[in-house]
Amino acid sequence: MKAWLSRLDSDLAFSPSSPEELARRELSAALPDTLFRLVTDPSLGEGYRISRESDGSLTVSGGKTGVLYGAYALIRLVLAGESIPDAFSSAPKYALRMINCWDNADGTVERGYSGRSLFFEGGRLRYDPVRMRELARLLASVGLNVLCINNVNVHLPAQLLLEDYLPEAAALAELFRPFGIRLMFSVDFSQPMQHGIPTADPLDPAVRSWWKDTAAKVYAAIPDLAGFLVKADSEGRPGPFTYGRNHADGANMLAEAVRPWGGVIVWRCFVYNCRQNWRDTKTDRPKAAWENYAFLDGQFAGNVILQVKHGPFDFQVREPLSPLLLGMEKTNLAMELQLAQEYTGHQIDIYTMIPMWKELFSELPADRIMSLAAVSNLGRDENYTGHPLAAVNLFTYGLLSWDPETDAEAAVSAWIRLTYAFTREQERALAALLLSSRRTYEKYTAPLGIGWMITPHDHYGPNPSGYEYDLWGTYHKANRDAVGIDRTESGTGYLLQYPEPLQEKYKDPDTCPDLYLLFFHRLPYSFRMKDGRTLIQRIYDDHFEGYEETEAMAGVIRALPFPEPDRNVILSRMDLQLHNAKEWCDIINTFFRRLSGVDDARGRKIYD
Amino acid sequence: MKAWLSRLDSDLAFSPSSPEELARRELSAALPDTLFRLVTDPSLGEGYRISRESDGSLTVSGGKTGVLYGAYALIRLVLAGESIPDAFSSAPKYALRMINCWDNADGTVERGYSGRSLFFEGGRLRYDPVRMRELARLLASVGLNVLCINNVNVHLPAQLLLEDYLPEAAALAELFRPFGIRLMFSVDFSQPMQHGIPTADPLDPAVRSWWKDTAAKVYAAIPDLAGFLVKADSEGRPGPFTYGRNHADGANMLAEAVRPWGGVIVWRCFVYNCRQNWRDTKTDRPKAAWENYAFLDGQFAGNVILQVKHGPFDFQVREPLSPLLLGMEKTNLAMELQLAQEYTGHQIDIYTMIPMWKELFSELPADRIMSLAAVSNLGRDENYTGHPLAAVNLFTYGLLSWDPETDAEAAVSAWIRLTYAFTREQERALAALLLSSRRTYEKYTAPLGIGWMITPHDHYGPNPSGYEYDLWGTYHKANRDAVGIDRTESGTGYLLQYPEPLQEKYKDPDTCPDLYLLFFHRLPYSFRMKDGRTLIQRIYDDHFEGYEETEAMAGVIRALPFPEPDRNVILSRMDLQLHNAKEWCDIINTFFRRLSGVDDARGRKIYD
Repeated sequence: MKAWLSRLDSDLAFSPSSPEELARRELSAALPDTLFRLVTDPSLGEGYRISRESDGSLTVSGGKTGVLYGAYALIRLVLAGESIPDAFSSAPKYALRMINCWDNADGTVERGYSGRSLFFEGGRLRYDPVRMRELARLLASVGLNVLCINNVNVHLPAQLLLEDYLPEAAALAELFRPFGIRLMFSVDFSQPMQHGIPTADPLDPAVRSWWKDTAAKVYAAIPDLAGFLVKADSEGRPGPFTYGRNHADGANMLAEAVRPWGGVIVWRCFVYNCRQNWRDTKTDRPKAAWENYAFLDGQFAGNVILQVKHGPFDFQVREPLSPLLLGMEKTNLAMELQLAQEYTGHQIDIYTMIPMWKELFSELPADRIMSLAAVSNLGRDENYTGHPLAAVNLFTYGLLSWDPETDAEAAVSAWIRLTYAFTREQERALAALLLSSRRTYEKYTAPLGIGWMITPHDHYGPNPSGYEYDLWGTYHKANRDAVGIDRTESGTGYLLQYPEPLQEKYKDPDTCPDLYLLFFHRLPYSFRMKDGRTLIQRIYDDHFEGYEETEAMAGVIRALPFPEPDRNVILSRMDLQLHNAKEWCDIINTFFRRLSGVDDARGRKIYD
Repeated sequence: MKAWLSRLDSDLAFSPSSPEELARRELSAALPDTLFRLVTDPSLGEGYRISRESDGSLTVSGGKTGVLYGAYALIRLVLAGESIPDAFSSAPKYALRMINCWDNADGTVERGYSGRSLFFEGGRLRYDPVRMRELARLLASVGLNVLCINNVNVHLPAQLLLEDYLPEAAALAELFRPFGIRLMFSVDFSQPMQHGIPTADPLDPAVRSWWKDTAAKVYAAIPDLAGFLVKADSEGRPGPFTYGRNHADGANMLAEAVRPWGGVIVWRCFVYNCRQNWRDTKTDRPKAAWENYAFLDGQFAGNVILQVKHGPFDFQVREPLSPLLLGMEKTNLAMELQLAQEYTGHQIDIYTMIPMWKELFSELPADRIMSLAAVSNLGRDENYTGHPLAAVNLFTYGLLSWDPETDAEAAVSAWIRLTYAFTREQERALAALLLSSRRTYEKYTAPLGIGWMITPHDHYGPNPSGYEYDLWGTYHKANRDAVGIDRTESGTGYLLQYPEPLQEKYKDPDTCPDLYLLFFHRLPYSFRMKDGRTLIQRIYDDHFEGYEETEAMAGVIRALPFPEPDRNVILSRMDLQLHNAKEWCDIINTFFRRLSGVDDARGRKIYD
């Protein structure tokens, strides 16, 4: 057993027949001295209720999977050394708590930083059943219930999951079933065209009937498949636009095919012009999602969920909440997060995400979304997440997808306590480090919400103008006087996609929160921040601080008694992070000094 | 038959037994109505003499290969419609007239823009013998006599050319022999270590004896092998530095091994720190070759040739002549050119090199170099050079390697006449276009000798700061006031590596030729050029002109009656070049306007 359940050593060589059986075995192994009773109560659904009886025994009641979630909640408490309340109950806030794997059938993982695929090799499903159950246990132990195993960019032969490889996929679904985890498949919108149908037009009868037949076959093999995940008309993927149809046409057609079986269509809202001309100042990529979807609000079938990235760009360190998550009141929405550290340090740099997620939830009206999705950070590395400390992101994501009110500090501390045998002081030191790690990374990378100053394609390390003249619509247009894009009414108008209170929050550079300043505004280097510093000095200060904080972080990390093999991985990655932070700090400062001509007010070295 | 010998249709399905037999067949086919006599005169070596006898017949005398070169010289005259003088003779200026292929054993070609390898596929030598003879004829027809078939970066299993694959290599050498072409192999300095020898130290007896034995075996199979080509201690390749030895130690050890068989060691002088820290302003990459080699002048064995890139960087559009080519008076030198258009348009953009080469020769003292080498632009594409017009570079390189006094305009015109059936007016139009194409490309790319503002790794298209903070030592350090690196005595001191007259030529920005200005100097944008324009205005003007010239070029190209399949390839690449030139023009101008804040004096559009 790896990661946070390392001290839970019940046998996973067997395949449990039901969540209840699994719950019983897990509890017996974890709480050998405790008398407990499991009661299945279908009315509780995924929820559970735990109460201490007068004889001291514990009763865990729950729906079919609720008993399992109750058991794991109890185990987490016990292993973390918490006292067990006399009675408590819980039910998940979100129906689908999803992990999206970007695993390719050839065994590679797109934007994967934890080794090769856990599920695929050589074009086929190929996995270690014991590791699969370990993984399933990790996911179930924090309440996650849907696993999409193949990349949203569906490269051949991943399409065969719906066809030739369906029997193997059904076997995998069976393996996950006792853990309460349902599979989901990414599908290729043009898949009917591989079967002699000359179109993928969602309104074409032959296309509709191919999808219906295919769904029927798939659901016959996997009756509890969660549904299909679709990336359409996005970064070169096929979609309804080819046929002059809109995304409601496309999604509803698929929804009709899976509806008889209780399936859903999760439709990713990641459509933008990825062939933008850098000279074009009218087009503003953050506006794209709204422009492509907002007018369709209310037109999607009841079993369609629009999956919207949390910000309007693409998982940058700091983005405002996507306006689509605020504006589509008549549509089922899922918010998409990214555990894979694509832009956030490749699981080399320490970057704990829950503080960022809590900020997002604080802006999100209650009940606006009904599900949560996250791009996986998992791979075949022994520790599953490449960097052992990156596991905290999977753990806390699970807790948050169950209950968005989860406290960040408590969740991180619980993860530490489950994972390492630290003293309370060591635990507090590591928790403080993890909770501040995103802010530190933010300080040494692109300043104040500007994003994208990263090495093109690879997305690790600085390249201040790497995307500046490229096709991706991610420009800062820094010149000798000013930097940033005006996204207010006087600029691209992106801000107008927000409800009034958020427009108010961001529209005036004098009151806009500092950390979003260069996301929304174009400002001269001499701009006075709220604390009196100039913009350019704030950029310098942040970068020097970011590197200093990383040095301090390294001191804390080196002093902590991580066990092997974690210690070796953590220390060697810490060295790489230090190098990375230094490169970022110096290159960003030099870039802005070359432009502005302004020296650091405190006389620190900025290279020519 | 392809390229410039397209009208020479004698059969290449047979294998000629000797250069003389080949010469006879070629002349009979090309000049069916002419009486000729071939006379082998060993005293003429590679040279030839052609004279018209009183009966009107022609006598071609020459050494063993000289008769063949004489025959091809005659055929070129006839096919180009020139009159044949009553008597003329010629002998090559340079002993080794080499093509270096960067072909990998897996069939890829490093920096290749003409398709896959002509020689390798799937790890083995694998070729079409008829195409091989076509290629051999092309090379021989312009006097080239050495072909190194494998990449200087010797990736496994290319090493096996010296071992398991030697019989196949010998068969290939036999195929090329009647064409006067000798093979050469790139070797891996560490190759003995694959045979249980724990070191590649050039002074180690086991190493020396392995190389001697290996050379003996190789020369037993290929008695006329030209020798070995070595890239050592360069960009990650193994070399003598590992063992605390210098490059004379390394080269001389190999030279000793091939000396008994008349072989040479061609040792590439391309050593620099490719892990440079961008913050370090003391290290200046152009200084590296001199620092690594100049002190060894006179210490290399008589059968070692140092192969020096023409400029101190790496085949940029404009570089001064490498000081190593001027300073190593007691060493055999070869100048290395690059036909492969790595930084010069990928055989998409039209870029005819001979005007650049003529500039290099004008600076090079007579008899300073004894051989010439060029990185190949050849590949398996039907036209051999990807872009049909890129063949002019191979053709003129051959003529120049035979006689550096070759006139650029005459050579280009001859190539056109041999290749296409154009009117004299069309020929003049194309010749003018080709002869100005390098200057046009220079205008729209990095300004005034600065180089390197190119997309990293790929090396096509603009990225003004793509290498600015990287490890490669290729910086421009443009800021809001100035651009360029001071390489004079007051700066990095690179200029001090030159003889006095060249120091004089370059040292003063007021007299330094404009096109080298930013190679040698760091200057403010307000610097006044000799013609009164400011530096920034000159940058803008060059870029607008470069694009306008490309548009004019496209007009000429479209009007010329190229035959198919050339026409289609040429026109589609012309469209790509137009797009590329526009991107370069606008991006470089925007880059400098963002920095300088200066508008174009003529009010042309520079994007924000």
